[in-house]
Amino acid sequence: MQGLMMDYPLTMERILEHANRLYPRKRISTVLPDETVHRYTWADLHSRSKRLASALEGLGIEPGDRVGTFAWNNYQHLELYFAAPCIGAVCHTLNIRLSPDQLAYIISHAEDRVIFVDATLLPRFEAVIAGLSRCPRIVLFNVKPGIRIDLPDAIGYEALIAGGSDSFEWPANDENAAMGLCYTSGTTGEPRGALYSHRSMFLHTLGVNQSNALGLVESDVVMPVVPQFHAMAWGLPYACAAAGAELVLPGPHLNPAALARTIADEGVTVAAGVPTIWTGLYEALKVNPRDVSSVRALIVGGAAMPRGLIEAYETELDVPVVHAWGMTELSPLGTVSRLQRHHRALPDADRWDVKARQGYPICGVDMRIVDDSGNEAPWDGSSMGEVQVRGPWVIGRYYRQDPSPDHFTADGWFRTGDVGSMSPDGFLTITDRTRDLIKSGGEWISSVALENALMDHPAVTEAAVIAVPDAKWTERPFAIAVRSPNADPVAAEALQALLASAYPKYWVPDRIVFVEQIPKTSVGKLDKKVIRRQYTEGKFG
Amino acid sequence: MQGLMMDYPLTMERILEHANRLYPRKRISTVLPDETVHRYTWADLHSRSKRLASALEGLGIEPGDRVGTFAWNNYQHLELYFAAPCIGAVCHTLNIRLSPDQLAYIISHAEDRVIFVDATLLPRFEAVIAGLSRCPRIVLFNVKPGIRIDLPDAIGYEALIAGGSDSFEWPANDENAAMGLCYTSGTTGEPRGALYSHRSMFLHTLGVNQSNALGLVESDVVMPVVPQFHAMAWGLPYACAAAGAELVLPGPHLNPAALARTIADEGVTVAAGVPTIWTGLYEALKVNPRDVSSVRALIVGGAAMPRGLIEAYETELDVPVVHAWGMTELSPLGTVSRLQRHHRALPDADRWDVKARQGYPICGVDMRIVDDSGNEAPWDGSSMGEVQVRGPWVIGRYYRQDPSPDHFTADGWFRTGDVGSMSPDGFLTITDRTRDLIKSGGEWISSVALENALMDHPAVTEAAVIAVPDAKWTERPFAIAVRSPNADPVAAEALQALLASAYPKYWVPDRIVFVEQIPKTSVGKLDKKVIRRQYTEGKFG
Repeated sequence: MQGLMMDYPLTMERILEHANRLYPRKRISTVLPDETVHRYTWADLHSRSKRLASALEGLGIEPGDRVGTFAWNNYQHLELYFAAPCIGAVCHTLNIRLSPDQLAYIISHAEDRVIFVDATLLPRFEAVIAGLSRCPRIVLFNVKPGIRIDLPDAIGYEALIAGGSDSFEWPANDENAAMGLCYTSGTTGEPRGALYSHRSMFLHTLGVNQSNALGLVESDVVMPVVPQFHAMAWGLPYACAAAGAELVLPGPHLNPAALARTIADEGVTVAAGVPTIWTGLYEALKVNPRDVSSVRALIVGGAAMPRGLIEAYETELDVPVVHAWGMTELSPLGTVSRLQRHHRALPDADRWDVKARQGYPICGVDMRIVDDSGNEAPWDGSSMGEVQVRGPWVIGRYYRQDPSPDHFTADGWFRTGDVGSMSPDGFLTITDRTRDLIKSGGEWISSVALENALMDHPAVTEAAVIAVPDAKWTERPFAIAVRSPNADPVAAEALQALLASAYPKYWVPDRIVFVEQIPKTSVGKLDKKVIRRQYTEGKFG
Repeated sequence: MQGLMMDYPLTMERILEHANRLYPRKRISTVLPDETVHRYTWADLHSRSKRLASALEGLGIEPGDRVGTFAWNNYQHLELYFAAPCIGAVCHTLNIRLSPDQLAYIISHAEDRVIFVDATLLPRFEAVIAGLSRCPRIVLFNVKPGIRIDLPDAIGYEALIAGGSDSFEWPANDENAAMGLCYTSGTTGEPRGALYSHRSMFLHTLGVNQSNALGLVESDVVMPVVPQFHAMAWGLPYACAAAGAELVLPGPHLNPAALARTIADEGVTVAAGVPTIWTGLYEALKVNPRDVSSVRALIVGGAAMPRGLIEAYETELDVPVVHAWGMTELSPLGTVSRLQRHHRALPDADRWDVKARQGYPICGVDMRIVDDSGNEAPWDGSSMGEVQVRGPWVIGRYYRQDPSPDHFTADGWFRTGDVGSMSPDGFLTITDRTRDLIKSGGEWISSVALENALMDHPAVTEAAVIAVPDAKWTERPFAIAVRSPNADPVAAEALQALLASAYPKYWVPDRIVFVEQIPKTSVGKLDKKVIRRQYTEGKFG
């Protein structure tokens, strides 16, 4: 027997209409390329998104068509987040940090019909066009007056939407229709696309706004430092619309000093980004203090936040840190590390330990740990295995790729490729990526644990640990580290002694080499593929 | 083009499994009939719900079958909340406060296959059985040892589930399948059933747990004083399971002193009930102070909380009040009155005004106000009209009843029958309920039913029943009647006795006044607006 509830599709225009109806005067502020601040409201975004939507239809964009974006975090990009899905098209955010070859591959694979390009990124984008057999229609925003544009047929964004109508009526969208497309650059193989549906993103939005999760509220001022080309800025723009929160978009100004100023000037209450960003901000704030007391949650994801940095933020700057874990394939939110009731009585040191974990799965995400023999590992805080997930905002397959057992289990779980353990109280600790684990003398060694321990040392700002081939032990850990400019230099031997005091002796890297910088991927993560190539294939003596 | 996300049905067993996986040791406490406290955990509830589920299948319960409950708030009732839906059956909560005739009608209309009866309510239930042509199977819990039960075939609850298996595997449920059934007594005609689906209740659960809504968290201890037979206890048991909150179920002990003691003893952080309950609690706390400082949210719904009482709770008892509005037909949550950012600077008096409103629609509920001519009224704080809603947890039709324009608009909105206005910042104020309905102590009373009963008396030609404000019960029914010139005069007391024989005692108007004529509208209907003005605004002594 079927229930008798309304047939109400879970589609993105519902969320936009909610924001416009309930929170029309709440602000969206963008730091423009020239560092002035552009301000408007959810009502403005609503009417401009309608203009943009009708203009997209005018360009011939049809339901299912991919609409590319190549841009920083700004209001025009945000308008595309809503306008494209709300006419049934797909908002395809291109990662501006990929190589021209990768981008050309992705644009061709996705068959983008039109690409909206932030003119401040034009030189970078022109290098991409060279590799395309057929160039999509280009729309430009943030064009500096007087600049000569060498793209025939390129349209200006404002001219485009000036021709649109703000009385445009949204079509009736199907909740299972695609609404967004994000490619994730595997460290192996070609980039793969996660194709979100209206339903999955609507549910992710409610999931994110649960109080146990990120729990955005009407009084929040949210700054996604995480780029809009990373898993829809972690879904925060939609969560803000649902909650009626204000948004602050930092544009291209991601240097620590600029972020510190924006937080202070705009009264940001929630800021979200990768650990590298927060490392930089911390150092900037130590040198040039700013009032960041408005921040109630510094959300960290994309990589593990070192325990010492969490402690420093909370004790020295009084900024609460919320560690989270997710993946593009999870829309992206999977776990959140908030202290629970039974942690209240813990001494501070133990609380930092809890906060340094990736956290508990939020309601809507099923999680299990599966060991090498395919058995579910107990939640005992030590048994490690692959993290597998299931839920309404997890991908069921990659775009234009047959489901492979490398990514999906026979019983329908997504294989994250991350290795971790679960504590008895349900907190995930990511110990490694499957392929980054080091196996030495038959024993597993966690590169992430070693990296975090190294980065907890005040004289180290960044560290990476990889496996290098070893005749005797098959593999041995090898570390590279970047010295902090604000501390006395530390010797490799001292770091080795530090690690030996905390881990089994065989975990201690035989060599720790200091470098100027560590190779990173386009999303700011340690690029172990490149590091391995540099240090295991003869480039390092 | 369809998105490529997991096909993950939104079903209730997902929420139960989440609670069991993440929060197995969090407690569920029930105040038993003898006032001792029964305690167990979400893990216990999980395994006993599995036993119960397999026992239900053993009784021949099949997907779609209605499983009735006739009970106070307790753990056995909670087990039915999960076990019945999770095998695809429908948990049908019977309102113990209805008259035997009404209950017999509802049980027959729903075709309950089995009814789980709280033995403390047995005398009341036996009166219902007399009116049934065919008695469903009866399962009893809370049977006092040594009591003689006159029901042939009645089974004991513990004996039933002892035969069940806790390794029972949930079937694959369809998210659109029915999971719960609640009848609401309407203004006219027979009671009507709202038939919830797994999907609607799953979404309601995420909706409730948004931080802008009720936002339950893992550290909460939630006491639903609202009965489990009222709109699934406002969905709080499911929201607690999703959040990992603890539950406190007060059993039959709803008197103010008992509630005060339970709040203090159990450290309740969130308590939910109708205004009448909180009026009583406030008075009890003034006489016998208790430590209720654990309460972070006193949720009020079902009727309007008087502004003075909100102020008294917040200023005298330091208990934050969260006013909410909903309906059985909305699963039930529609609006929540939390102060917003722009209210922070208001003087206290203005803040109480805001808190006395019903609040803003939460994300997931679309709302509009429609005036008598069918036009949408502006959100100007004064224009009144019928409150109409739409959303994934709003009913699309009543159970076994064709959709009628009295309840649904042509464009697919549900007509709540409530009259209200919206402020420019999106806060609903219910200014007038349906012309006919009276809500006393959180329970609906049908004025039309009472009027018809009065007019059935040979000595009465016309009668009208309206709500008059009442400090304790919020509203009480008040009747006016016109004597028939053709019969011997009847006394008010005789009419009250007549009504008491047919309806619950609380339905009987406290006063019945005889008048020469009753105000009518132009089309000859009782003009309740005029009657109200005459009898509630001082014209009546």
